[in-house]
Amino acid sequence: MKGIGINGYGTIGKRVADAVTAQDDMKIVGITKRTPDFEAKTAVEKGYDLYISVPEREEQFEEAGIKVSGTADELFEKLDLVVDCTPGGVGIDNMENIYKKIGLKAIFEGGEDHDPVGTSFNAEANYEESLGKDYVRVVSCNTTGLCRTLKPVNDLAGVKKVRAVMVRRAADPNDAKKGPINAIKPVTTVPSHHGPDVQTIIKGMDVMTMALAVPTTLMHTHNIMVELEDTVTTDDVLDAFEKAHRVLPVDAGLKLGSTAELMEYAKDLGRSRGDFYEIPVWKESVNVVDGELFYMQAVHQESDVVPENVDAIRAMLELEEDGEKSILKTNKAMGII
Amino acid sequence: MKGIGINGYGTIGKRVADAVTAQDDMKIVGITKRTPDFEAKTAVEKGYDLYISVPEREEQFEEAGIKVSGTADELFEKLDLVVDCTPGGVGIDNMENIYKKIGLKAIFEGGEDHDPVGTSFNAEANYEESLGKDYVRVVSCNTTGLCRTLKPVNDLAGVKKVRAVMVRRAADPNDAKKGPINAIKPVTTVPSHHGPDVQTIIKGMDVMTMALAVPTTLMHTHNIMVELEDTVTTDDVLDAFEKAHRVLPVDAGLKLGSTAELMEYAKDLGRSRGDFYEIPVWKESVNVVDGELFYMQAVHQESDVVPENVDAIRAMLELEEDGEKSILKTNKAMGII
Amino acid sequence: MKGIGINGYGTIGKRVADAVTAQDDMKIVGITKRTPDFEAKTAVEKGYDLYISVPEREEQFEEAGIKVSGTADELFEKLDLVVDCTPGGVGIDNMENIYKKIGLKAIFEGGEDHDPVGTSFNAEANYEESLGKDYVRVVSCNTTGLCRTLKPVNDLAGVKKVRAVMVRRAADPNDAKKGPINAIKPVTTVPSHHGPDVQTIIKGMDVMTMALAVPTTLMHTHNIMVELEDTVTTDDVLDAFEKAHRVLPVDAGLKLGSTAELMEYAKDLGRSRGDFYEIPVWKESVNVVDGELFYMQAVHQESDVVPENVDAIRAMLELEEDGEKSILKTNKAMGII
Amino acid sequence: MKGIGINGYGTIGKRVADAVTAQDDMKIVGITKRTPDFEAKTAVEKGYDLYISVPEREEQFEEAGIKVSGTADELFEKLDLVVDCTPGGVGIDNMENIYKKIGLKAIFEGGEDHDPVGTSFNAEANYEESLGKDYVRVVSCNTTGLCRTLKPVNDLAGVKKVRAVMVRRAADPNDAKKGPINAIKPVTTVPSHHGPDVQTIIKGMDVMTMALAVPTTLMHTHNIMVELEDTVTTDDVLDAFEKAHRVLPVDAGLKLGSTAELMEYAKDLGRSRGDFYEIPVWKESVNVVDGELFYMQAVHQESDVVPENVDAIRAMLELEEDGEKSILKTNKAMGII
Repeated sequence: MKGIGINGYGTIGKRVADAVTAQDDMKIVGITKRTPDFEAKTAVEKGYDLYISVPEREEQFEEAGIKVSGTADELFEKLDLVVDCTPGGVGIDNMENIYKKIGLKAIFEGGEDHDPVGTSFNAEANYEESLGKDYVRVVSCNTTGLCRTLKPVNDLAGVKKVRAVMVRRAADPNDAKKGPINAIKPVTTVPSHHGPDVQTIIKGMDVMTMALAVPTTLMHTHNIMVELEDTVTTDDVLDAFEKAHRVLPVDAGLKLGSTAELMEYAKDLGRSRGDFYEIPVWKESVNVVDGELFYMQAVHQESDVVPENVDAIRAMLELEEDGEKSILKTNKAMGII
Repeated sequence: MKGIGINGYGTIGKRVADAVTAQDDMKIVGITKRTPDFEAKTAVEKGYDLYISVPEREEQFEEAGIKVSGTADELFEKLDLVVDCTPGGVGIDNMENIYKKIGLKAIFEGGEDHDPVGTSFNAEANYEESLGKDYVRVVSCNTTGLCRTLKPVNDLAGVKKVRAVMVRRAADPNDAKKGPINAIKPVTTVPSHHGPDVQTIIKGMDVMTMALAVPTTLMHTHNIMVELEDTVTTDDVLDAFEKAHRVLPVDAGLKLGSTAELMEYAKDLGRSRGDFYEIPVWKESVNVVDGELFYMQAVHQESDVVPENVDAIRAMLELEEDGEKSILKTNKAMGII
Repeated sequence: MKGIGINGYGTIGKRVADAVTAQDDMKIVGITKRTPDFEAKTAVEKGYDLYISVPEREEQFEEAGIKVSGTADELFEKLDLVVDCTPGGVGIDNMENIYKKIGLKAIFEGGEDHDPVGTSFNAEANYEESLGKDYVRVVSCNTTGLCRTLKPVNDLAGVKKVRAVMVRRAADPNDAKKGPINAIKPVTTVPSHHGPDVQTIIKGMDVMTMALAVPTTLMHTHNIMVELEDTVTTDDVLDAFEKAHRVLPVDAGLKLGSTAELMEYAKDLGRSRGDFYEIPVWKESVNVVDGELFYMQAVHQESDVVPENVDAIRAMLELEEDGEKSILKTNKAMGII
Repeated sequence: MKGIGINGYGTIGKRVADAVTAQDDMKIVGITKRTPDFEAKTAVEKGYDLYISVPEREEQFEEAGIKVSGTADELFEKLDLVVDCTPGGVGIDNMENIYKKIGLKAIFEGGEDHDPVGTSFNAEANYEESLGKDYVRVVSCNTTGLCRTLKPVNDLAGVKKVRAVMVRRAADPNDAKKGPINAIKPVTTVPSHHGPDVQTIIKGMDVMTMALAVPTTLMHTHNIMVELEDTVTTDDVLDAFEKAHRVLPVDAGLKLGSTAELMEYAKDLGRSRGDFYEIPVWKESVNVVDGELFYMQAVHQESDVVPENVDAIRAMLELEEDGEKSILKTNKAMGII
């Protein structure tokens, strides 16, 4: 059993911890926290050993009744691989100043840039690229969402050109500080960074995107327009989506016509924390018109990358050579359809 | 094992179904649905037998690939007790026109009035009143919340007078139709119905309330002011809340200073659907000033009444004479702290 | 002075009334209302004669202290032209059953279909088509927004193809009933109706759109991607927008980076009701890349069509032959930049 | 004509500037700004002379095309009185370090504490206290709202005790950064500071309050419960509210049952920026039960204090000895009912 650590037990980190725990070929050795809050408390109650990133705060943790097992540096020594879920930009610092020095393999999240890490990861699209690698970046929730559906479309019909508009939830559900309460905030840098980010996974695809933030916390949505190389029908595309891993065509007509209802669906499916690991695509929105494909999908920003992290671990530690086998193994352990 | 049915498998109904399933002295025989939507689909996938309330719609269900086990009337014949979770007002019709005719015991929810049912229920406050009864109403989420904390305060120090303002979430999380998006809507009938509703449980207590709706979906909050009979300290009250069943004092300081963070906490605790069955009281808000107690609590409108339904079943079917024993048994099965 | 009536004094109707009043070649003879609410009250207080659509309700109006000047039918007899601002679908009924019978010219709003009316209107793009016409439809706020900016782009560089995503505010600011509070609702009919609607104004333009609703009340936003015929620069496009009527390039950098701040800007400009009649285009978002133009704009759904209604009146009553002269006259009277 | 300056031309400052301009016994000499944004731009376009608080930024203003008339210090030399609308806490610094040194009279807003200023102001309740004073604090929007209605209730029936819950809008309409998007945030310091703040105006009144923030931008609401000394009826109280200055009883039944509709009403009344200077009280919510008065009111946080600032200027500069005369003069100039 390979020993994995989580550096930064927050929105993504705590989910990756649980997902790793659900596997039979890896386990969590410990997690790190900076602040003695309820997340730290429940982490220890769940049985995770907690290591602190700021050694001077040990007393604060103890006053809050939270058991400390050591410092982050002590944790890193015990690991085969660390999943770095610290805030954007911190991960690269950690790579240069800590992980490289002690020869520790590390996964970074989508908040980091591609270039310093060198390899970006999406299980369906380029698993093999990460085999045996020391440093790998699992791309962001939005890029993961785009890759998950553009890969099967490209395999089916050849993608000439993609234009997409990303409608982003402005804050996470547990965030009571960020707004806006009542406004739309465009990202006025156009095209947005999402297109180039997809190209770190699917090389050479012509993807241009625009983005904006809206006052909701649940999910992002993507509005995607694709010019195709080959002639295919709407049913062909739906069929490709049905067969793709971690893509879930849903019927708006079955009372699933909004992100609110999709989130309820995830709860009804019994998902841990009500997470939606797949990319739901609204079946009714899929339409091929004169060689151009239109569709709409949603992205659960808190969780779609979680199974990707598990697969990335497996690739980097060479626990499994074959991407599809890893995907199926991860999915089974996490209850993904 | 007593056989229980759920009439109306929606927000409350599906939770009661799962809570009953978690007990060892009762089980779900079947549930009813009117519409073939994703909730119907997942109900069957989870193993619940589904009976339809509108027999003519059988074909619609079959077209949607949802297995129908019979009609609602057929289900009712097989039950020891039905939990009626239909929309407000429908339950009383069902009592008169169906349940009484076939001699079926029934629980109603807080959307129904007290008078036609005759007995209202809160496990902590008046379990014994429902022993062996045929028809019992589990009071609404807000009334449950008030009873849960006012009972221990009354036991501790005697309540002279309660004034409370109920700040209601305007729609449930899965509701994408109701607003307001950006407004406060006062309930201009003052005092509101919540005071008299508490009196169906705690007879004679002087409780007056005002209510308003605000644009959030997560939880209600209550702002409560109590004139006390006896002299007690803030710590005495906190202590009473710690000891009360299904009341959970929380530290705003541990990053729990809003309903958003409370909901995240419930997910971290591993609760089914992220539910918060207890009434969280913000510790920092509890304050006794000159014989007057102030405190603030939150109410998870989707789930606080769910364990109450289980206890009500046990009282009505005389599976347990003692209220506290039932509470502890239910809590253990549902993972309540 | 031509005599104009407003049938349906609501969000659009009351604004058109004030805009007509601001002109020197037309005046309001009266407005109609169905319900005795605060809008009816303030209409009369402002000096508009109020006629009731449901004659039986006269007493209700009088009880509420609102002076009634007669019935809607009595008003129609006194008019040169009626602006029908009734809810979508009602206008066509009125045309067939009332206006045609008494030979009354009528303007309809974007909630009506193009075909039964026969002529659609946008002052900048096709003023002349409506000269002398009896029935004209002023296109919807979103279509008006698209025409306002696509017309100058087409004039500048030739439009090969437009793809746009319309992010709609889910309810108007004064609407406390509609949601969602926390969700994104895609319009799963793809492409949406906005493309064909633009084609009723700018014939033959290849425009395809997708739409979704988000929980905000202030403005819609459009994300627009245009393949151009001719080679132009970003500055050329900005220049064309600066010169276009009722298009207002704005600097996100001057604290105008959201729809909330745009609305504040309109208030600071002293606009009646805080309205934003122009289409603001975020300057930073305008970008020409390899012959493809990207830009983002906002649409104040309550008011952008208001000056269009004034111009449409002028065209239909042949008060002015030249579209640009009418636009400038209307703009001056309404304080449009 | 007395010369007034506005230090801090933001949400309150710009409104006070316009309100002063509407009077015939005072005028705006200049306003100050720190940042060259759209508010600075429109201030100059409206004709206000703009002075900069950070002299080094002159170039930034000029680059943005905004005319600078000098530095803040230069402005202060030209004034009879300055209205300090800088962010909370800055005003007291300015008093000590600037205004006292040059002998300039100054008004502060509710973000400052009472003690260092020494005199707090509400036109209806204690105008005379500020006659000839050098430093006066106009109390916050919420305290102004409480004083406006508690004063006439006290005059009518004697107030024994007030308990109120303040439901605060979490951000202003033009604020696209602050949240929460979907949560309720209690102020866990109980009782909240609003009670003591009322006592700076109405000495000795027993007022205790609780507060919370909700995801809306339009208005605060207050839920107020008052034990009365004397026996009065609901109609007596309504009558007192009708007669009070700057209190406006409204009918929820005339489609005014939410803060969204109240804001629309203000626009329909033709108010500058759609402001609601009065405190609207929902008539239906006013109810006297057994000597206890209940009522609900709303507070337009952006504007209710604006006429108070005008009256405070008049008292401090002894332009008018009689509070009521000043109120009526201000109201007439601002179009207050």
